[in-house]
Amino acid sequence: MSQDPFAAIRRALAAPPEDGSEPAPALRLDPGRRERTGIPEVVLAERKTSEEVALSLMRLAEAQGRAIASRLRPDQAQALPGLLGETFDHSLDEISRTAVIWTREFPEAPRSGGRIAIFSAGASDRPIAREATIMAVEMGCDVVTVADVGVAGLHRLVRPLERVAEFDPHAVIVAAGMDGALPSVIAGLVPYPVIGLPVSVGYGYGGAGTGALMSMLQSCAPGLAVVNIDNGIGAGAMAALIANRAANAGF
Amino acid sequence: MSQDPFAAIRRALAAPPEDGSEPAPALRLDPGRRERTGIPEVVLAERKTSEEVALSLMRLAEAQGRAIASRLRPDQAQALPGLLGETFDHSLDEISRTAVIWTREFPEAPRSGGRIAIFSAGASDRPIAREATIMAVEMGCDVVTVADVGVAGLHRLVRPLERVAEFDPHAVIVAAGMDGALPSVIAGLVPYPVIGLPVSVGYGYGGAGTGALMSMLQSCAPGLAVVNIDNGIGAGAMAALIANRAANAGF
Amino acid sequence: MSQDPFAAIRRALAAPPEDGSEPAPALRLDPGRRERTGIPEVVLAERKTSEEVALSLMRLAEAQGRAIASRLRPDQAQALPGLLGETFDHSLDEISRTAVIWTREFPEAPRSGGRIAIFSAGASDRPIAREATIMAVEMGCDVVTVADVGVAGLHRLVRPLERVAEFDPHAVIVAAGMDGALPSVIAGLVPYPVIGLPVSVGYGYGGAGTGALMSMLQSCAPGLAVVNIDNGIGAGAMAALIANRAANAGF
Amino acid sequence: MSQDPFAAIRRALAAPPEDGSEPAPALRLDPGRRERTGIPEVVLAERKTSEEVALSLMRLAEAQGRAIASRLRPDQAQALPGLLGETFDHSLDEISRTAVIWTREFPEAPRSGGRIAIFSAGASDRPIAREATIMAVEMGCDVVTVADVGVAGLHRLVRPLERVAEFDPHAVIVAAGMDGALPSVIAGLVPYPVIGLPVSVGYGYGGAGTGALMSMLQSCAPGLAVVNIDNGIGAGAMAALIANRAANAGF
Amino acid sequence: MSQDPFAAIRRALAAPPEDGSEPAPALRLDPGRRERTGIPEVVLAERKTSEEVALSLMRLAEAQGRAIASRLRPDQAQALPGLLGETFDHSLDEISRTAVIWTREFPEAPRSGGRIAIFSAGASDRPIAREATIMAVEMGCDVVTVADVGVAGLHRLVRPLERVAEFDPHAVIVAAGMDGALPSVIAGLVPYPVIGLPVSVGYGYGGAGTGALMSMLQSCAPGLAVVNIDNGIGAGAMAALIANRAANAGF
Amino acid sequence: MSQDPFAAIRRALAAPPEDGSEPAPALRLDPGRRERTGIPEVVLAERKTSEEVALSLMRLAEAQGRAIASRLRPDQAQALPGLLGETFDHSLDEISRTAVIWTREFPEAPRSGGRIAIFSAGASDRPIAREATIMAVEMGCDVVTVADVGVAGLHRLVRPLERVAEFDPHAVIVAAGMDGALPSVIAGLVPYPVIGLPVSVGYGYGGAGTGALMSMLQSCAPGLAVVNIDNGIGAGAMAALIANRAANAGF
Amino acid sequence: MSQDPFAAIRRALAAPPEDGSEPAPALRLDPGRRERTGIPEVVLAERKTSEEVALSLMRLAEAQGRAIASRLRPDQAQALPGLLGETFDHSLDEISRTAVIWTREFPEAPRSGGRIAIFSAGASDRPIAREATIMAVEMGCDVVTVADVGVAGLHRLVRPLERVAEFDPHAVIVAAGMDGALPSVIAGLVPYPVIGLPVSVGYGYGGAGTGALMSMLQSCAPGLAVVNIDNGIGAGAMAALIANRAANAGF
Amino acid sequence: MSQDPFAAIRRALAAPPEDGSEPAPALRLDPGRRERTGIPEVVLAERKTSEEVALSLMRLAEAQGRAIASRLRPDQAQALPGLLGETFDHSLDEISRTAVIWTREFPEAPRSGGRIAIFSAGASDRPIAREATIMAVEMGCDVVTVADVGVAGLHRLVRPLERVAEFDPHAVIVAAGMDGALPSVIAGLVPYPVIGLPVSVGYGYGGAGTGALMSMLQSCAPGLAVVNIDNGIGAGAMAALIANRAANAGF
Repeated sequence: MSQDPFAAIRRALAAPPEDGSEPAPALRLDPGRRERTGIPEVVLAERKTSEEVALSLMRLAEAQGRAIASRLRPDQAQALPGLLGETFDHSLDEISRTAVIWTREFPEAPRSGGRIAIFSAGASDRPIAREATIMAVEMGCDVVTVADVGVAGLHRLVRPLERVAEFDPHAVIVAAGMDGALPSVIAGLVPYPVIGLPVSVGYGYGGAGTGALMSMLQSCAPGLAVVNIDNGIGAGAMAALIANRAANAGF
Repeated sequence: MSQDPFAAIRRALAAPPEDGSEPAPALRLDPGRRERTGIPEVVLAERKTSEEVALSLMRLAEAQGRAIASRLRPDQAQALPGLLGETFDHSLDEISRTAVIWTREFPEAPRSGGRIAIFSAGASDRPIAREATIMAVEMGCDVVTVADVGVAGLHRLVRPLERVAEFDPHAVIVAAGMDGALPSVIAGLVPYPVIGLPVSVGYGYGGAGTGALMSMLQSCAPGLAVVNIDNGIGAGAMAALIANRAANAGF
Repeated sequence: MSQDPFAAIRRALAAPPEDGSEPAPALRLDPGRRERTGIPEVVLAERKTSEEVALSLMRLAEAQGRAIASRLRPDQAQALPGLLGETFDHSLDEISRTAVIWTREFPEAPRSGGRIAIFSAGASDRPIAREATIMAVEMGCDVVTVADVGVAGLHRLVRPLERVAEFDPHAVIVAAGMDGALPSVIAGLVPYPVIGLPVSVGYGYGGAGTGALMSMLQSCAPGLAVVNIDNGIGAGAMAALIANRAANAGF
Repeated sequence: MSQDPFAAIRRALAAPPEDGSEPAPALRLDPGRRERTGIPEVVLAERKTSEEVALSLMRLAEAQGRAIASRLRPDQAQALPGLLGETFDHSLDEISRTAVIWTREFPEAPRSGGRIAIFSAGASDRPIAREATIMAVEMGCDVVTVADVGVAGLHRLVRPLERVAEFDPHAVIVAAGMDGALPSVIAGLVPYPVIGLPVSVGYGYGGAGTGALMSMLQSCAPGLAVVNIDNGIGAGAMAALIANRAANAGF
Repeated sequence: MSQDPFAAIRRALAAPPEDGSEPAPALRLDPGRRERTGIPEVVLAERKTSEEVALSLMRLAEAQGRAIASRLRPDQAQALPGLLGETFDHSLDEISRTAVIWTREFPEAPRSGGRIAIFSAGASDRPIAREATIMAVEMGCDVVTVADVGVAGLHRLVRPLERVAEFDPHAVIVAAGMDGALPSVIAGLVPYPVIGLPVSVGYGYGGAGTGALMSMLQSCAPGLAVVNIDNGIGAGAMAALIANRAANAGF
Repeated sequence: MSQDPFAAIRRALAAPPEDGSEPAPALRLDPGRRERTGIPEVVLAERKTSEEVALSLMRLAEAQGRAIASRLRPDQAQALPGLLGETFDHSLDEISRTAVIWTREFPEAPRSGGRIAIFSAGASDRPIAREATIMAVEMGCDVVTVADVGVAGLHRLVRPLERVAEFDPHAVIVAAGMDGALPSVIAGLVPYPVIGLPVSVGYGYGGAGTGALMSMLQSCAPGLAVVNIDNGIGAGAMAALIANRAANAGF
Repeated sequence: MSQDPFAAIRRALAAPPEDGSEPAPALRLDPGRRERTGIPEVVLAERKTSEEVALSLMRLAEAQGRAIASRLRPDQAQALPGLLGETFDHSLDEISRTAVIWTREFPEAPRSGGRIAIFSAGASDRPIAREATIMAVEMGCDVVTVADVGVAGLHRLVRPLERVAEFDPHAVIVAAGMDGALPSVIAGLVPYPVIGLPVSVGYGYGGAGTGALMSMLQSCAPGLAVVNIDNGIGAGAMAALIANRAANAGF
Repeated sequence: MSQDPFAAIRRALAAPPEDGSEPAPALRLDPGRRERTGIPEVVLAERKTSEEVALSLMRLAEAQGRAIASRLRPDQAQALPGLLGETFDHSLDEISRTAVIWTREFPEAPRSGGRIAIFSAGASDRPIAREATIMAVEMGCDVVTVADVGVAGLHRLVRPLERVAEFDPHAVIVAAGMDGALPSVIAGLVPYPVIGLPVSVGYGYGGAGTGALMSMLQSCAPGLAVVNIDNGIGAGAMAALIANRAANAGF
């Protein structure tokens, strides 16, 4: 081994040394993400301690004004209000297990002008659809939601589609479990990019969302791309990125 | 070859003739199946020699008047006409790789009064749908077929559904590959039992019919049961059994 | 079948604007399903709140006289009686986790004349078989059940088959877990359409019903179609649809 | 987007009786798809006869000026020129197995102003990336492609990313087989919506694109949605839909 | 690391140094296997050159009198006679792709007194059943075979079972593809150890023998153990080991 | 084996009408199984009520003198003593979750002379190995067990193998989870039929016994057949059937 | 069967009879493993009783000075201190569920001079990375850890890589769940052998570490080998074996 | 979108602009890889044209003196000699489908002093083992190979292990298909890091190398890490990296 094996790498990556202000390794956040990619970092709470979640949220909110945590455990949801300092307000959504906190200067997410429509196929798909909604709203979009529009009774789809057409969204999210057929049907009818959001509903062969994911990937309708099962944050972020880009394109 | 190394094996395989009326073990047919279950035995050609297929067909046709072979290899399809004795007429369908033979007394399958509608979602699903059609016709049913009715463009489904309603079938078969969504959509709209027939069309995740099968089994629409991927014979037999029973129920 | 079975579909697809009386999106029911497809909507309770289940049941029962909920959690089963208004009677089946409610005018499901036989292979298959039974009875059928008829001891099958033959069913359901071999055996012996109902019993390779489903789809016996693992409601609906169609065919 | 994007849907769902001019069932095309969804119908050639492919292309080109066929078999590619009438010009791309035909009035796809960047991770991913490119160009977009940018040597990514930043695309497609890590890496660095396009390259565990698809769906980087393995047409259509919407948004 | 890291291993295994007579590494045979385990080594031909197969067979036959090769490719079957020296006789079985060679002193496998019955469910299962037969015969057993005994027509099972009972085998092999139900049925009826031999017949979900294997492993009938799909050699060896042990037990 | 082992089958298949003494459908036991197949019926407790388990055990013990239940839940194990009438003694084994009950006349299982050796690879495999032991002992065999003999330290295998050789078993069971390599190693060294018993130990890829099962089915060592994961009863029954047949063969 | 079937085996393995000092079968430890392979035996606690864990640890520590247990259940962690005799000190690590005990003479693991760097991609990967760290330290290595270095923000990788380059490790471990892309990226940049350690983090398709494992196995970067999901002990042992060998190589 | 969205990325990665000497995109090689990671880039030939392979090899050999191509198709192997210019010598290995080319100045790979032992379990594993050998030799190592050492006859392992101990390798590769048990056995006996190399040999359940990979990942023996199925290049590179580091460590 040569005396300096990293010469080539350093030359290639030549990163300016970061200063000492970075957080401890256990909380190595990425507050620059929003500036770099247009999407704020989200704190995935599930496997963290309540303290880690609160600390991460506060650090992000300090940098960005607002911050989001997803997949909160019940004990985390209960502990969070007590852990947040007085400089932060917060809102908890039990159904989607999501929390948003903000500093006094940012009582509302700034509006981007992006417009998104979010369909859910059945009652069980709504928590995940709601996670997507919160993410899209935090990224500045206006959201219209349509619930309980199954393919086994397609006539129920007509009036909601007309309402959505009036709203003229920049992107559409369709959350569906079971056979996951709704995104295909909608993508075959509308002129908007559709994000398929498979939900872990179902049983037996193809249960836990596998059937829904597979059905969406096999769709005969182009104009449809998917995120992983139950990834409401990802669907919301993708749709908002598309919508914000379209909304700002004229400027 | 030596004097006789396989003596013991040959003795073992020699299969002491059970009384003369049954064929050699390699052709242990079940001509009583039609009487017992209402469904004629079908010769699955794929792994047999052309001679075995021809012999099986002739023995079944002798007992039943008509006989069917499915999944013929091209070489079998070519050899079959020459192998059938003069007492048999035959018909070959290349698309579905099916053959039907009959004795002079049975130039047509007897009519049962059963009525079946067979939908196929895409052009690639038609060979399998056709296999189902031939089976149903041989079991005595009248069949109406509707091709190329995809879910990515549901408006194309309306007029065919009306035509089918006029026909008033006893059972419906829906063949579909890819996302396999069509059977769910149809089962959610019509008052007939629907047999989902997944077809080995598709690629990537859920390819080879897996996605279609999974989607049908996960369907939210009751009134739908499925057969295995590409099992046109099975779908045709099931639908015809249902239809024949309904057609004869009044007697 | 009525003279114009597609009236409901045509009305639905013409999509008359729904008035303000529709329920909130979270309870977007489909009370027209029974008229359109011959199968009543069933409330899948598992992921709903007790209040949502009760409300859905009452709305459906108001429209149809009777209503069914499946897969009740224990807490839902306990809460349901207190949540139903005085206008409804109800019946709870703990084994199959099913509830039926009805208004005073419909103390019994109307009889259709359809006849269904339901076999279960082992003791563990009975809850699912029972779910199928309740669905079939609610759709108007007479049901005969035969329990504990395993393939590992086929001689036990003989007498039950004779009893079933006397009953002369229009359709047969066979519930089986583990190796799922019973539906194949029965379909090879009887002249009735058989619905295979795989049950999530088993362990190791092919456990959770996978082996049973696979075995039924691979069956050499035509005249057999399957529903998903543990889908007793689907099996009951499919069999009743077949039976009712046959029972009414003579008129 | 026009002032009433749902006109086509409403007309379609009102289902005006189609006249006799519709093609035979085997060629039930959907020429209204472009108007309805913004995406032209593509002829999937693989399982059709050369005649069916040519006929479908010509009918679509008559209606739309231009038409695309994908996944041409070698025999189809050879037969196609002879089968097209004199009113059509054509172009064949052997690498991606794609054909485009057009009438004299439409020698070029109309330009939409949409901008798309398409990355491919390895040499084997380029045919699929090229399929996506052709689709996007036919939908009117300007496309910049960057080939052979693997994650095992990330420093090679820097200059191409800068070039792409200057182009300022509305959407990005990243084609990758093997470990499928490139889309995650890019989505974590850029402010554009990324379409992950897994390619059926790889061997052993996770081969045939499975590993790439899984990796993209498990990505920690939001702002990434995927299509099925080798679905270049789908990725191109989705990206072009996004880009066209953004390009037209200011009007 | 100590100067002699293998001290512990050598002490534990302390193997006598093998002399120079061992074959080249590419043909490291195990002629002592028969003495040690009661089962002769079998040459798996599929991935070897014809020369390697011939050489291996001759070396084994020199040591044991007789030798077996399985899964011969057609080119190997053709080349083998020319490659064997004059000291060996041979016999080729095309159906099971098996070869047996022997020296003049061993024109027949010695008889052990073991008795084995081998059932096959369908015509396609016979090549694999035949491989098992040859292996069992070479290990000295008497074999009775029963072909084409499907579960879809169980009445056909009765007479063969009676014949088998008269033969009173020490072990039974049941080869089956598709739903693989026959071994369960037989194990539930007879007092002999049953070896399930799944065969790679079938299509769609559970194809290539997967369904048969799963069904046998899920069997409710104890007294059944299985080998891998298409492993006729393994089934024959296991059954013969059982039978030979029982046949010799009295001595 | 008796002079006419098929008497029971012939009687059973002749299907004499069972009289009214058969138990209720929910307890359709098969007490004739031991006479017919040499293996007593075992009550699989897991999904039954404690009362059903107790009743089934008592009915079987009345017919056979002794009876076994497997996979008892803790609540069943606790309830069982109180539910058994005074005519029965019982023994509970917590480790393997097994119970045996007997009438006063059968304080011990009759001895068959069969000899079985049972190896387990790791400490976690012992509960399942113990289930196999109990089954084999109840079927009359003498059993020698060897625990904790892993392949990662093969020298530890030598002394146990010698002890087993002195015992001279008729059959060997090898229980192993994780990589499941031990059965292959043992089958390559000993002249006894080996039953591979995969155990649901392991994690990650191939966890829950899948890796062990796969490894055993892929074994290069003939003379090895397997039962499903955790099927100790099945392994014990198969081994005892082999051993008893060998032990009785001399008579 | 000959009178002494183990003659061949005994000759081959000829193991010196072990003396009577071996532990009871349930605790058949392998204290010679460290001498033989350079890796101490680790007590896998998960399925043992607390007493078995304590006894195993004490016996190993008596032989080796120090001993490790992994995957302790909470009840075991609580019970352990009380079960260890006074001759042993211990240390418990809750995060990684690991315990180390030692005798007074071995208060610290001896230092080998081996150097290892351990990266973890996300906060959820740290418990497993920590298990690897403890194993490597117990095997004598110096360890540097770098946490929270995700691929979705690769610029964060630069400074840690430089720190690691100064440390100049002999081997690198990279723990990652989700898309598991980090090991590929690092292996493509550094001149050290990389052990990929997939972690059971993730959800939906590819969840539970499957996606991470697959991605690492599909990696385009050579110089990377993997252990099973969550196998921190295995990764630590492999890396330490490599590092210790390199550290001692000069002597 | 800000006017310069890549500011953050550029700052972080700040790569020196590459000059114009880079090859066309289709041949974007990484000749710096050897300097950076210690492993030369290998040309994966399978999906390239013969011309692309030759050009890539020549460019790499110009930069490095020698270059390797793997997985050559037969047509590529035939074309290669004619395509290489006169400045290059070459060597083709048909068994492993590998080619090495070199300039006159580098007739031999430089020796590193690293020592590697490569075991293969069966004859079918040798091509892949050979690919690993060539890679290791090109990276400067001395290699000892041991072929045909199966676990079904472990006594055959003793003498080869002793030979390997005398060689005292820095790392060991064990190639195995089927049950893949050999790496576990060897890792449990020797004090060297073991690279498990699963080979796509096997059939039925666990075929195509799946069983071997799973078995190695489930191994109870620490000191073992694996590469993907058939990845001989990867195994050779990993082992050589380990060995070279150890060989140079003393300096």
